[in-house]
Amino acid sequence: MNSVPMSRLRIDLDERGYDIRIGCGLLSDPDSWSGLPRAAQALIVSNTTVAPLYAQRLQEALSPHHERVLQVVLPDGEAHKDWPTLNLIFDALLEQECDRRTVLYALGGGVVGDITGFAAACYMRGVPFVQVPTTLLAQVDSSVGGKTAINHPRGKNMIGAFYQPRRVICDLDVLDTLPPRELSAGLAEVIKYGPIADPAFLDWIEQNLDALRALDKAALSHAVRRSCEIKAQVVAADEREADLRAILNFGHTFGHAIEAGLGYGEWLHGEAVGCGMVMAAELSARLGMVEADFPRRLRALVERAGLPVVAPSLPIEQWLALMRLDKKALAGEIRFVLIDGLGQAVQRTAPEALVREVIQACSA
Amino acid sequence: MNSVPMSRLRIDLDERGYDIRIGCGLLSDPDSWSGLPRAAQALIVSNTTVAPLYAQRLQEALSPHHERVLQVVLPDGEAHKDWPTLNLIFDALLEQECDRRTVLYALGGGVVGDITGFAAACYMRGVPFVQVPTTLLAQVDSSVGGKTAINHPRGKNMIGAFYQPRRVICDLDVLDTLPPRELSAGLAEVIKYGPIADPAFLDWIEQNLDALRALDKAALSHAVRRSCEIKAQVVAADEREADLRAILNFGHTFGHAIEAGLGYGEWLHGEAVGCGMVMAAELSARLGMVEADFPRRLRALVERAGLPVVAPSLPIEQWLALMRLDKKALAGEIRFVLIDGLGQAVQRTAPEALVREVIQACSA
Ligand SMILES: NC(=O)c1ccc[n+]([C@@H]2O[C@H](COP(=O)([O-])OP(=O)(O)OC[C@H]3O[C@@H](n4cnc5c(N)ncnc54)[C@H](O)[C@@H]3O)[C@@H](O)[C@H]2O)c1
Ligand SMILES: NC(=O)c1ccc[n+]([C@@H]2O[C@H](COP(=O)([O-])OP(=O)(O)OC[C@H]3O[C@@H](n4cnc5c(N)ncnc54)[C@H](O)[C@@H]3O)[C@@H](O)[C@H]2O)c1
Ligand SMILES: [Zn+2]
Ligand SMILES: [Zn+2]
Repeated sequence: MNSVPMSRLRIDLDERGYDIRIGCGLLSDPDSWSGLPRAAQALIVSNTTVAPLYAQRLQEALSPHHERVLQVVLPDGEAHKDWPTLNLIFDALLEQECDRRTVLYALGGGVVGDITGFAAACYMRGVPFVQVPTTLLAQVDSSVGGKTAINHPRGKNMIGAFYQPRRVICDLDVLDTLPPRELSAGLAEVIKYGPIADPAFLDWIEQNLDALRALDKAALSHAVRRSCEIKAQVVAADEREADLRAILNFGHTFGHAIEAGLGYGEWLHGEAVGCGMVMAAELSARLGMVEADFPRRLRALVERAGLPVVAPSLPIEQWLALMRLDKKALAGEIRFVLIDGLGQAVQRTAPEALVREVIQACSA
Repeated sequence: MNSVPMSRLRIDLDERGYDIRIGCGLLSDPDSWSGLPRAAQALIVSNTTVAPLYAQRLQEALSPHHERVLQVVLPDGEAHKDWPTLNLIFDALLEQECDRRTVLYALGGGVVGDITGFAAACYMRGVPFVQVPTTLLAQVDSSVGGKTAINHPRGKNMIGAFYQPRRVICDLDVLDTLPPRELSAGLAEVIKYGPIADPAFLDWIEQNLDALRALDKAALSHAVRRSCEIKAQVVAADEREADLRAILNFGHTFGHAIEAGLGYGEWLHGEAVGCGMVMAAELSARLGMVEADFPRRLRALVERAGLPVVAPSLPIEQWLALMRLDKKALAGEIRFVLIDGLGQAVQRTAPEALVREVIQACSA
């Protein structure tokens, strides 16, 4: 049977600490939903793709815990990670006269999770929320760590808050319906944790990539757990991204430029990150920070994960301009997350000439 | 000379603690702006009324501290405390490629302060901001305590964050240009602090009301300082409004119903609060919680402050419906802040019959 026992991980943030639970069948397991803040009202936030698949199951599982379980179904897609969509949540909450105890449940991928988390952070200046991530990317990355946001026409995730969920429920079974392209996008973030924190995990991913792509639950369980562990460790040490936390953005400076340059939605976030990691690895190698072979090794793995490894051709000045607008940039200086020996990452600037070389070498 | 020495008050919130400075000529005093977070960029947020009066002065005072001091001028008024206006701030920040160190300065009344604070809370998930309150209401109330918000068509301050400023600069001189009606609105919040926390301060206000209305700086300085002290004390004990902090909403449950019932902007917030306090006092007296004479005494003071003391005539069911939507309400139960012996306030429910009586007795 392709099933695994539940595994539990504690995120240590003092009074804001919370559990991540990883396993099969968690959506329908009553235990997943007990011990959360009590409230008469709950709101399931999902989207037009995920709601038909799983909202009813969650609705039933929550009904013993709240007098009224409401639903709001958002349009699907990164293009809708914006104010009008966020406002649909506020409208639903206010129409139904939801008070400040109301618990929000984010049922969906990173887009639903980020919007719902931000809605929870802002509604009446803060209501509790629970993450129920349904994409691999959301399970290994976006649902952990308390970053929430919406996009602005001029930049991704520009408007948001640090706001922690009360619990994260990663039901591995829901990944069965995930389009393979989305699974690959999630694998990009899984791969990320190897180079920045754990060379042994990178080895493990290389050995288990086929099992992961075949949705083997034991492999997925380990990948999700180890990814969350690493992310949790980094976040616990630096909740508000003073500096250390930035290493989680390995591949993201180049990646964000790809996403913004092509227009959001053209490449998936994970696809852009996959390619961005190859570029950042290349930059690290050219700076002599990591063995010359590492970019090739990472490139092979990213490719095996079903992800693009050749960057789109954008004018070079556009690359630089986009990266200067990255949230990590300070006073116009681009800061990259680079690999400083396998298993370690640092944030630093790089000579512009070298950056141009890398862009040229990695683009179509 | 109608001037007073600067007075400084510390708000104790550990690493988020900050200073309130109260005095004359602070806007042009270099000392007001030193020791704040260093950043290449700063953005002064003001509105069409206040910017022509004071933005240039602030711009000059800030220029030694930031390479670029930008300005954004919002439309004036509570009606604009909404998303489109908030977005003008985000647009300005992103157009000018402002990074996450950028310091925001809120130059204006409570509306500018609340919007700017919320913008600071959300821009790139949080940038520093400084309050430069220019109304009495903002100096004694809205700029202290870290509540920020915008309105939603269905409710006031429904979308916001708890987010502390790095400093509050209360320049008493700017009150000289404040319309008398706005000064009175501010006095409502000053008066509020007496009944909920300090009977001696209530006596002092009664004795100094004429000086306050004549903009005597010594009287203003004491009123602002004592008000901030009381608010700070309450906020320090309960930053996120678990319960205690709610006493600051004395008069606000009735007041919000007046504001919402008439449509925001008809009565000023302070006017609604003034009248709401008289109603809450009446309710407290009818519940036997405070001497029978207190509502009359408060009513006389509120009236002397230039504030309305007779509530507008709204259908009684509308009153109740509006109050049930108040943020303090839980599961449809209205919770009032009532005076429990002069100088003390509690939050509690009240029999609906009594609430109806009070509304009848206090309305036109
Ligand atoms: N907050 C953070 O720390 C963080 C970290 C990384 C990424 N993110 C954000 O996450 C977002 C990307 O998340 P994502 O990759 O999950 O994208 P997504 O939320 O758009 O989901 C991808 C697609 O899969 C669909 N889907 C989701 N679950 C499904 C399921 N079980 N079966 C079938 N279809 C399903 C979705 O409806 C969507 O069409 C981006 O907006 C990114 O900025 C946030
Ligand atoms: N955050 C909090 O804790 C808190 C507390 C109380 C009130 N508030 C909010 O504060 C707002 C009310 O604030 P307000 O009463 O300051 O209203 P306001 O900001 O609308 O200012 C009142 C009017 O006076 C003008 N003005 C401001 N300073 C002036 C000056 N020096 N000279 C001439 N004109 C001047 C303004 O442009 C405006 O037209 C409400 O939105 C309320 O919700 C917030
Ligand atoms: Zn990512
Ligand atoms: Zn008020």
